[in-house]
Amino acid sequence: MDKIYEYIKKDRALNHAMNLLSFDLETQAPKQAIEGISDTMEVLSQLSYLNFVNPEFKELLYSINTDELSDIDKKIIKKLKKNIFEKMSKIPVEEYSKYNALISKASYNWEKAKNENNYNIFKPYLKEIIDTNKTFIGYRGYKDHPYNVLLDDFEDGLTVEQADKFFNLLKEELSPFISKVLKYKDSKISEWKEKLNSKTYDIETQKKLCKELSQILGFDLSKGVISESEHPFTTNMNNKDVRITSHYHEHDVLSGIYSIVHETGHAIYEQQVSDEYDKTGILAGGSTMGIHEAQSRFYENVIGKQEEFSYLIHELIDKYFGIELTKEQLHLVINDVSASFIRTDADELTYPIHVLIRYEIEREILSSEVDVDKLPAIWNDMYEKYLGIRPNSDTIGILQDSHWSGGLLGYFPSYAIGSAYASQMYHAMLKEFDISKAIKQRDFSKINEFLKETIHKYGSSLTPDELIFNCSKEKFNPHYYVDYLKEKFSKLYNIEGE
Amino acid sequence: MDKIYEYIKKDRALNHAMNLLSFDLETQAPKQAIEGISDTMEVLSQLSYLNFVNPEFKELLYSINTDELSDIDKKIIKKLKKNIFEKMSKIPVEEYSKYNALISKASYNWEKAKNENNYNIFKPYLKEIIDTNKTFIGYRGYKDHPYNVLLDDFEDGLTVEQADKFFNLLKEELSPFISKVLKYKDSKISEWKEKLNSKTYDIETQKKLCKELSQILGFDLSKGVISESEHPFTTNMNNKDVRITSHYHEHDVLSGIYSIVHETGHAIYEQQVSDEYDKTGILAGGSTMGIHEAQSRFYENVIGKQEEFSYLIHELIDKYFGIELTKEQLHLVINDVSASFIRTDADELTYPIHVLIRYEIEREILSSEVDVDKLPAIWNDMYEKYLGIRPNSDTIGILQDSHWSGGLLGYFPSYAIGSAYASQMYHAMLKEFDISKAIKQRDFSKINEFLKETIHKYGSSLTPDELIFNCSKEKFNPHYYVDYLKEKFSKLYNIEGE
Repeated sequence: MDKIYEYIKKDRALNHAMNLLSFDLETQAPKQAIEGISDTMEVLSQLSYLNFVNPEFKELLYSINTDELSDIDKKIIKKLKKNIFEKMSKIPVEEYSKYNALISKASYNWEKAKNENNYNIFKPYLKEIIDTNKTFIGYRGYKDHPYNVLLDDFEDGLTVEQADKFFNLLKEELSPFISKVLKYKDSKISEWKEKLNSKTYDIETQKKLCKELSQILGFDLSKGVISESEHPFTTNMNNKDVRITSHYHEHDVLSGIYSIVHETGHAIYEQQVSDEYDKTGILAGGSTMGIHEAQSRFYENVIGKQEEFSYLIHELIDKYFGIELTKEQLHLVINDVSASFIRTDADELTYPIHVLIRYEIEREILSSEVDVDKLPAIWNDMYEKYLGIRPNSDTIGILQDSHWSGGLLGYFPSYAIGSAYASQMYHAMLKEFDISKAIKQRDFSKINEFLKETIHKYGSSLTPDELIFNCSKEKFNPHYYVDYLKEKFSKLYNIEGE
Repeated sequence: MDKIYEYIKKDRALNHAMNLLSFDLETQAPKQAIEGISDTMEVLSQLSYLNFVNPEFKELLYSINTDELSDIDKKIIKKLKKNIFEKMSKIPVEEYSKYNALISKASYNWEKAKNENNYNIFKPYLKEIIDTNKTFIGYRGYKDHPYNVLLDDFEDGLTVEQADKFFNLLKEELSPFISKVLKYKDSKISEWKEKLNSKTYDIETQKKLCKELSQILGFDLSKGVISESEHPFTTNMNNKDVRITSHYHEHDVLSGIYSIVHETGHAIYEQQVSDEYDKTGILAGGSTMGIHEAQSRFYENVIGKQEEFSYLIHELIDKYFGIELTKEQLHLVINDVSASFIRTDADELTYPIHVLIRYEIEREILSSEVDVDKLPAIWNDMYEKYLGIRPNSDTIGILQDSHWSGGLLGYFPSYAIGSAYASQMYHAMLKEFDISKAIKQRDFSKINEFLKETIHKYGSSLTPDELIFNCSKEKFNPHYYVDYLKEKFSKLYNIEGE
């Protein structure tokens, strides 16, 4: 095991360097530095790949008698075998490199296609990405459904069978409910929103507000950094160096605030991983994508958009800028529901529908020979069917997300599943203490402590199923999500009979 | 050669990552991240060391027939042989690792000793550092004087014989001149200085001023970053990613300004290295320490403290904060001469005397068995002898600099030699165009272009001697330095007969 730890130490160091390079690129590197950074990333990622994928390491890994190991060491060996030799090494190196080159070109051309609203520019790359993924799935082998391989990459253990059940529930329960909410929506909410956004919010002052807010939530600045980037994100070098970014808009103060709340959720998770797992590298950091999104969306939506939290936001905006809306009006603006085209701007209630649409398209792509020419129309039809709106351009339609151009097929479902996890976590937490009262008292330590003890401290040593059971003492149950949304928005919009 | 370039590519990538990690540590990394950063640095520096120091690379390097190579490739091979196999590989790896561990402990204990004004805490580490350096010099072999080995590490080709000549000239010419200047000094200068520093200068506004100033000088922000750190420094990933920092004080606006001017000098050098050399890694970046300091001090002192530049500073302070001094008064404050204890705070005229003292102590240490118990007294005696002042504590005496605790024996002389180079560069430039007029017109492009064509673009492909000859068409001549200082300060302080 000591030898294994030597390899892990090198892996951790290279990942640390690569994460810092990416963070630097997104936040402050000068424009002309890009080429140098990408050259360095290429070398480091090759070193990192070859560190594990080589005959000596493979022999070492498979020669270890796991019976005599500690539980943690057993998990390390299992994960190394799964991630390195069951996934990566089945794909021939040349094909993998070729795929990475394809991704670079695809990303560039996706951006061009999006900016020029011209799907044809992106189309051939999308086709090649889909085809290559199918080939890779063939190499790796699958059970029941080829899509299962990709779902499992992002959400450990997730299958089409489970995902179908989950998304069908959303379709049946949420779709009609959303129509009702939109019908009953108070037109004054839009007026209040406009009033809030008519002011100019100085960016430097917004940063101060967001820093205070993030610290109130429990982000520890002795183990973290808050910075700025085009798209907000969280990254971490280890549990003592977690970095979040936000993006601020002069005429939309809530955008920067909720980005910070979302990223703070990711960050608190990373900061609360126990040293025991952090130092192993392999079991460090958060668990799956879905579990990570559950933490960020728990803070952003479940906690961050309830009454008492809206009042806290009201207090902070008033302190830094002054505010004309009442706290009750702000609460409604924060929870404004509308059918919109862009997933990342969507409200808490309609958000999963955007994900559902992507899930159904991906499943279709992986099941059969889909004609890429027809995908934009399929996309638009689904928006019309589920949200009652039809995009009038591909820029706000199929070209809006970067994921497919980056080869990330199978990634989207975890966004919605994360939200569902968050509702179940909330349900479990409510049994323990009065959450609303804790928020009112600006005391987030109870919330953080509960999540630390039931989820965060385990790093990535447990599966989503294990973590959800740990936290809620029951299996994953998506009904909590549907019930939570319907109850919350029925109350907010005075909808009876739900 | 293609194989050599593969090794160089890896070396460049690892250096890029290490430089970024250091920059990050000094500028923004959270407090608790330090351990993780030092772990990662350890792994990367080991990878970097082993990349070159290994039998395969050695065999490759020495098997290449250099006759058929291009000039650049010849230089790369020569430098690799010198730096890797003539220096590093003569020291047994275990002893080198032990020395690195010693340095870490020494640095920690030096800081403690300095804070507690207790030389005894640092003394045993200093002794061991001196002894180890002597042992290493033994391994590496030397000609004429053991100190030559260390001088050459920092200033390619510098010997005790040359350095003695240089410092003796300073001793003979500058020491008596300084006494005279101090005698004639107008007492009003201190009053004006106090007046300037009595105001509070908002840090954020200082940053804006310094950013504008750095850009006026020619720092290209599309290839650079300005940040903040405890001690100002410049670092670079390559010629398109050069980073400078400053440190700002609320009651000393000139401190932050002159740090920026100094670092901008280093940075313009790095940004102006030609791509041809930059991409080789081995010949990238500036030449020696002395040549680098020559660039920074050229901007900071030679250019930065002449009349027209003082007026530019006056204009900027007035624009951002308002200023009560006249521009002529500010010029005198900027060039205030005083005998002081701290090297880094010293003025342009007394600065080389601080270096002279360190040079004489180092030469003594390397020549004979110096009793480390006596070093503080030796230090204080020298300050009394050369500057007429005696430190009343070791904190402002022998403990003030970090260099020895970091094992950097032989480093100091290059500071003074750099200033002397700068005077010679200035003399050469004056023959080409009216520098004062260029500054008055805020046009630094002529200055930068001259330095680019005669020094900067060559990266580290030429020796100091070659660069100085390139720039001035004559050999290094320290009389330019003495003449420059005496002429400048005689005029400023109305001293006749010089």
